[in-house]
Amino acid sequence: MALDRLKQAASHVTGIGRALHPLDPLIETEIEHAVSIIRKQHSHVAFNAITLCEPPKAVMLKWVKDPEHTPRPNRVADVVCIGKGSKVFDGLVDLTDGEIIKWEETPDVQPLITMEDLQIVETVVRKDPKVIEQCGIIGIPPDDMHKVYCDPWTIGYDERFGSKVRLQQALMYYRPHPDDSQYTYPLDFTPIYNSDTQEIIHIDVPPIRRPLNKAPPNNYHAAAIEKEGGFRTDLKPINITQPEGVSFSLDGRVISWQNWKLHIGFNYREGLVLSNITFNDKGTERDTFWRLSLAEMVVPYGNPEHPHQRKHAFDLGEYGGGYMTNSLSLGCDCKGAIHYMDAAFVNKAGAATTIKNAVCIHEEDAGILFKHTDFRDDSVTVTRARKLVISHVFTAANYEYCVYWIFHQDGTIQLELKLTGILNTFPCNEGEDLHGWGTEVYPGVNAHNHQHLFCMRIDPNVDGPNNTVFMVDAARGSGEVGSAENKYGNAFYALKTKLATPEQSQTDYNGATSRTWEMCNESKINPYSKKPVSYKLVSREVPELLPKPGGLVWKRAGFARHAVHVTKYDDGQLHPAGRHVPQTSGEVSQGIPQWISEDPNADITNTDVVLWHTFGITHFPAPEDFPVMPAEPMTLLLRPRNFFTRNPCLDVPPSYCSVPSGVRQGGTLVDRLSRMAFGGDQSGTQECCSK
Amino acid sequence: MALDRLKQAASHVTGIGRALHPLDPLIETEIEHAVSIIRKQHSHVAFNAITLCEPPKAVMLKWVKDPEHTPRPNRVADVVCIGKGSKVFDGLVDLTDGEIIKWEETPDVQPLITMEDLQIVETVVRKDPKVIEQCGIIGIPPDDMHKVYCDPWTIGYDERFGSKVRLQQALMYYRPHPDDSQYTYPLDFTPIYNSDTQEIIHIDVPPIRRPLNKAPPNNYHAAAIEKEGGFRTDLKPINITQPEGVSFSLDGRVISWQNWKLHIGFNYREGLVLSNITFNDKGTERDTFWRLSLAEMVVPYGNPEHPHQRKHAFDLGEYGGGYMTNSLSLGCDCKGAIHYMDAAFVNKAGAATTIKNAVCIHEEDAGILFKHTDFRDDSVTVTRARKLVISHVFTAANYEYCVYWIFHQDGTIQLELKLTGILNTFPCNEGEDLHGWGTEVYPGVNAHNHQHLFCMRIDPNVDGPNNTVFMVDAARGSGEVGSAENKYGNAFYALKTKLATPEQSQTDYNGATSRTWEMCNESKINPYSKKPVSYKLVSREVPELLPKPGGLVWKRAGFARHAVHVTKYDDGQLHPAGRHVPQTSGEVSQGIPQWISEDPNADITNTDVVLWHTFGITHFPAPEDFPVMPAEPMTLLLRPRNFFTRNPCLDVPPSYCSVPSGVRQGGTLVDRLSRMAFGGDQSGTQECCSK
Repeated sequence: MALDRLKQAASHVTGIGRALHPLDPLIETEIEHAVSIIRKQHSHVAFNAITLCEPPKAVMLKWVKDPEHTPRPNRVADVVCIGKGSKVFDGLVDLTDGEIIKWEETPDVQPLITMEDLQIVETVVRKDPKVIEQCGIIGIPPDDMHKVYCDPWTIGYDERFGSKVRLQQALMYYRPHPDDSQYTYPLDFTPIYNSDTQEIIHIDVPPIRRPLNKAPPNNYHAAAIEKEGGFRTDLKPINITQPEGVSFSLDGRVISWQNWKLHIGFNYREGLVLSNITFNDKGTERDTFWRLSLAEMVVPYGNPEHPHQRKHAFDLGEYGGGYMTNSLSLGCDCKGAIHYMDAAFVNKAGAATTIKNAVCIHEEDAGILFKHTDFRDDSVTVTRARKLVISHVFTAANYEYCVYWIFHQDGTIQLELKLTGILNTFPCNEGEDLHGWGTEVYPGVNAHNHQHLFCMRIDPNVDGPNNTVFMVDAARGSGEVGSAENKYGNAFYALKTKLATPEQSQTDYNGATSRTWEMCNESKINPYSKKPVSYKLVSREVPELLPKPGGLVWKRAGFARHAVHVTKYDDGQLHPAGRHVPQTSGEVSQGIPQWISEDPNADITNTDVVLWHTFGITHFPAPEDFPVMPAEPMTLLLRPRNFFTRNPCLDVPPSYCSVPSGVRQGGTLVDRLSRMAFGGDQSGTQECCSK
Repeated sequence: MALDRLKQAASHVTGIGRALHPLDPLIETEIEHAVSIIRKQHSHVAFNAITLCEPPKAVMLKWVKDPEHTPRPNRVADVVCIGKGSKVFDGLVDLTDGEIIKWEETPDVQPLITMEDLQIVETVVRKDPKVIEQCGIIGIPPDDMHKVYCDPWTIGYDERFGSKVRLQQALMYYRPHPDDSQYTYPLDFTPIYNSDTQEIIHIDVPPIRRPLNKAPPNNYHAAAIEKEGGFRTDLKPINITQPEGVSFSLDGRVISWQNWKLHIGFNYREGLVLSNITFNDKGTERDTFWRLSLAEMVVPYGNPEHPHQRKHAFDLGEYGGGYMTNSLSLGCDCKGAIHYMDAAFVNKAGAATTIKNAVCIHEEDAGILFKHTDFRDDSVTVTRARKLVISHVFTAANYEYCVYWIFHQDGTIQLELKLTGILNTFPCNEGEDLHGWGTEVYPGVNAHNHQHLFCMRIDPNVDGPNNTVFMVDAARGSGEVGSAENKYGNAFYALKTKLATPEQSQTDYNGATSRTWEMCNESKINPYSKKPVSYKLVSREVPELLPKPGGLVWKRAGFARHAVHVTKYDDGQLHPAGRHVPQTSGEVSQGIPQWISEDPNADITNTDVVLWHTFGITHFPAPEDFPVMPAEPMTLLLRPRNFFTRNPCLDVPPSYCSVPSGVRQGGTLVDRLSRMAFGGDQSGTQECCSK
């Protein structure tokens, strides 16, 4: 049997000249292979998604420890198809054995909306007589229907229509000229589109009408800026180059850099997936995280007027962060020495399609890594930091999400998000009271309050899969001021609360106590501190879910009710709001709440767990966010605590080192290119770098 | 009179070939001039500080509006001197008129400890018989006293000794070899030093003794790393160059960059001081902030055992962030095209001294500034961001604080701090119970829990000095789920609370509501949003002060009791914990609490106000922080909200722009140097940049 499997492994050697890693995304030929296998039995379905079904974790944990002597897991495709009448089929196709191993019709669900699903709506909307009629009412003549646009969102959930029919809501806009930004010209009515019949089945019309905005266009494209006076000319280039090449290396999709080693996956749903992340600690490859991804998000809008409650996009579960990912451009999205990875998907018709340059990998200088000067004699060591950035950018209709997974030399993993793109807008009449639910960011343009709440799936593997999560709060010592034990009142310590069950694990953020969560391996004790090795989640942008308990968003986005949920590891639990998110009612909250309710008192200590972390920002728009938003940054850290016995990056070559004895010290990584801005005295250089 | 002043202004033309700006720090010749004026009347004093006494704000506001026709304010030196018997003199010397205009003895205060004050203690300690005796008890023979070191901190406050005698506490260490880090060898007793008599007046000896650590050295200097296996060799250089020069220009110390214009000051206490910060909004120089600085900080340690309660350094008020600033090195502390500024101080003897390269100014690429892709046709605009960084680094005994004031093109001002350097350590015996007050970071080395709490002084000038501060919380709409007004429960809005009096202004952080504070000009309304123009403080690292109310730190560091205090502007209110901080008892809390108590119900709306913001981190040490700490970052933002009528950086040249019509668009700032990491296909470059 083992031999059979080893033979099969050979068949994984592909056109790209290497064996695929079991976690590699499906490549184009595999996608087409899956399609051809399905077509034999199910010829008339349309394809919603074909993606790697990752092998069971237990299998993978064995394989990564000894890939030479362990059978390579079969390649399996996870398939979602849609038949006539919005019938949904969930399937698994074993590509190694060439057979369908699962094929089920799943009732009353709607898989995500693909780019193709989105593209078609605008055409239908423009021709619909009722839409043309509504356009007429607000001042758009029938001849101008080619100037009408829509962003076709999922409907979210609308109790009038339920979940059986596949629907989209068309958020309507207008462009005076094809190059004008339509977000300056939102329309006040909302057609509802049936994907199955490709027709408009209803239009939501507000009680107060708002005629087409008469304000001049508010554009940001180059021609518009040129017309307004042109671009500033006082920005001199900054050149970033790596003449000796980059410091990372790749074996397929396994990257090695500065003691880190990890596999870079990508799927239509989560976008980037980082797996089997290890850190080489003086020769020992130590496990840190088994798998990290952004697994879900929700963007609830705060206007209670109908039908705005439907605006609460689950951009990953309803559209797919991978499907919406941008093809990146050298020197534009990323600067320096770049490595790109493409992403392959299936289209509706079953053909493989590829987004070129979907993932960007590059290094950046990261300022001071560590420094200390002795005040006695000015002896000093200063070492500069480098970081590795693995990123992608996806466009969710109006908004852009830039996702940066950043690895630091000190063992820290950082997730940085930048939000840019364009505000979702709705029209407002002159002098209209917006009731605080939005801001007039430009005459006639109302941008509604909203939150961006992301759910990060953290599968810790801190020196092995059996981990325990603690909530950690800074707490005052018990003695009162004046008491023997705390006379001056200054006692404080780290109060650690073990999250022993999924129910207990549902915890919120507390800024006042600098709350963090530690993922520990209680079986592995730091020899110095006598504390368990751990990684700590340090996340400071953690607003509460503002939609109220019991309300629509609260029900559908159960993952966002708490900052942290912890569940026992389960291969099938990948999607915090459920596998098929569009049109879920929330009557049973899919995903995390359901999993937890199945066994709320399970023992989740010293076992394989997943920590789900919801974080984000609350955005009250302002005119400076329009017509395109300057990027708003947000970040969180996973930091090693009691994991190493000392600072793990002491062997990064210093920029400069001098010691009290005056004995000559190395300065092996010297930057001889830095210069004084205005010429003249370069003595600083000499003093620092040539010793 | 005006003519006289204008004539005097000519005398400000100095050896550096230009008239000094009224906010320029005193230059060496001015310091020496001040000393010579004082010496004539007070020949025997020692100099603690001579720094610019900034002209009254009212005078400066007039001058900056029309410097050509407004008398240039006189140059005045603010002087602190110390006479025999720890007598303290506060003085003002008018340098323009050449006379002392104030000279007062201030009783019962101790001015800050200078580097010279620090340097001398070690010599005294080594020779003191009682210290030698204590060293003997823990295993250091008298012959090894040259291996004994101390970090001489201010005493903080010790009720046994009060405030009349100038004291320091010597935190004791040992070095087996001069190049060994002494923080691996802390000693368990604490001598108290009298600066006036230069003798040890007391030694605090703990009830349990801890012999000298026997663990091997834990070093990070280059020779140690070489010995342990050497430096990693897999880090390839990253070159950052600006061949066409930098994008900023300087007129004296007034810098102009990307619509920003500001004056860069520096003093011994706060370090960097940024004043008269304006943003050119399409031709109009608009006021944003009058003055920004880090004004104070406190680092309370959490071990209640005597005498550790005394460890709560006010690094700015007790030592001076300027005095302790590092001389920076090209390519080491900062990379690229750098402009430095020096800093001049007085020494004890009255001579001017200069720290070369005290301030670093440089630009950095800052990733994506904004981006949007239209999903219909992939038409896209992507523009890269640049930032201006004005920084200094100061060493407070064991710790390093790296201070980065960052200006963004979108009108945002960011303060970033990086904490590095070395943990303060205390010895522990094998198996000793540390009671949760600290962590054994290396055998025998106990690093105590501590907080770093910084107080940022924000003097807003949002379209003029008359501003009002609001606390802003994200809040749920009032209707319950199912009600007509909030049927789906999704209503939320920005709840704004006007801070109308200093008493009301004492507000804490709330992470759950994403609390921010807005500095508004209620007389200036954004024409689109109809909201007052404002700048918003977005700060997410805001722990509570952990030392208890009524305790020593709480009393001395009144500024740290709340995240925000707002006071009416007063020229004399610069120092949140008082002008002279060492040895304050806190019995009357100096600084902010005192100012507020003087008129707690004053009207602070629509008037000239100062917002004091305390933020920071709580640090529970771990072995990876030792023997030198990887830099821990912390940041906050001041963001324009309703200040502009649109995104103010749309005229930054895009990296790439395409439009739906296909009409050719500019791409004027193209990066032609970015390259693929592994050679090969460069088609991405062509596609992006050559259109």
